[in-house]
Amino acid sequence: MRKKVTLKQIARELDVSISTVSKSLKDSHEISEDTRQKVQAFAKLYNYKPNNIALSLKNKKTKTIGIIIPEIVHHFFATVISGIEQVANENGYNVIVCLSDESFDKEVINMELLANGSTDGFIMSLSKETMQKKDFHHIQEVISQGMPVVMFDRVTNDVFCDKVIIDDQQAAYDAIQHFVSKGFKKIALLTTVDYVSVGKLRTDGYLKALRDNGIKINEDLIVKIEDIENCSNKIESLIQNQDFDALFAVNELFAVTSIKLANNLGKKVPDDFSVIGFTDGIISQFSTPSITTVSQNGIKMGRKAAKMLIDRLEKEEEDELYTTEIIETNLVLRESTTT
Amino acid sequence: MRKKVTLKQIARELDVSISTVSKSLKDSHEISEDTRQKVQAFAKLYNYKPNNIALSLKNKKTKTIGIIIPEIVHHFFATVISGIEQVANENGYNVIVCLSDESFDKEVINMELLANGSTDGFIMSLSKETMQKKDFHHIQEVISQGMPVVMFDRVTNDVFCDKVIIDDQQAAYDAIQHFVSKGFKKIALLTTVDYVSVGKLRTDGYLKALRDNGIKINEDLIVKIEDIENCSNKIESLIQNQDFDALFAVNELFAVTSIKLANNLGKKVPDDFSVIGFTDGIISQFSTPSITTVSQNGIKMGRKAAKMLIDRLEKEEEDELYTTEIIETNLVLRESTTT
Repeated sequence: MRKKVTLKQIARELDVSISTVSKSLKDSHEISEDTRQKVQAFAKLYNYKPNNIALSLKNKKTKTIGIIIPEIVHHFFATVISGIEQVANENGYNVIVCLSDESFDKEVINMELLANGSTDGFIMSLSKETMQKKDFHHIQEVISQGMPVVMFDRVTNDVFCDKVIIDDQQAAYDAIQHFVSKGFKKIALLTTVDYVSVGKLRTDGYLKALRDNGIKINEDLIVKIEDIENCSNKIESLIQNQDFDALFAVNELFAVTSIKLANNLGKKVPDDFSVIGFTDGIISQFSTPSITTVSQNGIKMGRKAAKMLIDRLEKEEEDELYTTEIIETNLVLRESTTT
Repeated sequence: MRKKVTLKQIARELDVSISTVSKSLKDSHEISEDTRQKVQAFAKLYNYKPNNIALSLKNKKTKTIGIIIPEIVHHFFATVISGIEQVANENGYNVIVCLSDESFDKEVINMELLANGSTDGFIMSLSKETMQKKDFHHIQEVISQGMPVVMFDRVTNDVFCDKVIIDDQQAAYDAIQHFVSKGFKKIALLTTVDYVSVGKLRTDGYLKALRDNGIKINEDLIVKIEDIENCSNKIESLIQNQDFDALFAVNELFAVTSIKLANNLGKKVPDDFSVIGFTDGIISQFSTPSITTVSQNGIKMGRKAAKMLIDRLEKEEEDELYTTEIIETNLVLRESTTT
């Protein structure tokens, strides 16, 4: 039996990217005619067929769900997987997890791997590189083969499929409203650089809430962090040089880091300023003081994604209508905010 | 094409456990003759063959490694996966992860799922239930089919295969030695109940270190915790009623919980007592004070396990000699211990 050639092998042989191979096989005009011909000839020679096992097994159910996530050392993704597992088990499905490590190529390779007869459908959150490239060929391909895909958290409008998200802007807005209701007006923001879409949305929510409450935006209170490893200087400078009574951080690492640095500088949370973080992970629960946080409800998100996928897999007829479910967030009040 | 019947389906049809089906198919005398005959007849009728795809594909490499771990919302397992991913990627292998959720049945099902042509070999850590049952048929089966298995952390002597572990007893011993070298003699222990093997080994290391240093063992300073959710009373009672100057906790949740409870009771770590935890996770890094901890080197463990598996997969001849690698632990000094 001759070994099946993969996208990855074609890319390596011809010294082009996986994306180029994928687009060439679809005859995309983004790729030069010369390259397209070369790729197509090679694919023909080695009998490449896109996910050909998947095609032949279209009616053979594996009762397995493939999950592709960017990373695993991340409490949020781990809780989403737990939620997916719960619903999968309740319905007699197995779950297989692959990691993209934030790489486009690995996302494509994993998708090809799992689409080759191992799974009935996918639940996925996009890698950073895929979002930057805006290349979703691999996802569109499995969908066109009849394998449903549900995206969660990091999604794109460029692919028609079911999606589960939280309303990041509204969640941040609610956190700021909480501060305002406690009488705070000098509210600082620790956020990411703008190309991280969820960071951007949370920043937008912060700005909107301030505007809606007639609070003037003070750019000196907004700190954008590119690299969590080297953020101490920026946060220390904020704590030492600026006057604020509350701080909203767009993730829990920023929140806990600001509390630790304040401590070192002789300031106390929540006596000197209150802190609200984002993502209800174990850091927020176990830090001292424990951290008030926007809960993303990862378990609920995973459960919903699994339910949407299984519903679609078990429906007799194909349904062309896709839905986007918005999971409600809520504020978990803890010691880092005054009551 | 007729669908292949699985162990799980046979178990469900005949209303027996997966373990019973597996043993019956191997003609094990642990199972009554009546049940064995019933299972074998059913299996024959439905043309069951153990991992028959795997057998036929023995010479077809998938270049994929299957990982089976007990749970994912656990920093240690997540870091091991990262280590495996690193070495797998360096060697052109893909990685697929399945979770047993601490269930024997799920471990068996996942193994069967992945052995059906999806992977070349396995890296796994046993589920609690598998360790309690001491039933390793499913693992012996894939090994006998020529698929190598590497076990890490939670391993068993009952299966011959490559293993990667840390020396839990020695690691605990070293932590206590550190306390003794700082002049502490009243050392408390927060540990698990004895049936958790790693907890037991760490307790043994604590006891041995005390004995070797001529320190009398005080049972009042040893607290065994069954349930992390309901451990506060026991720990508070230790802090309020006992006199000790150092505390060793066999995991980071116990360590951080004792620090928080001490705080609530008006005691300060490390001024009133020093704390060393186990597992260098994000809680230890980000708690206030940050926690001195025994690092299990999950990344290193994952890298080593992946290297052992890939070496075995790429060797021309079968090697009957298995090795057990011991990963060195080290103490990461932080604020919870006096310097």
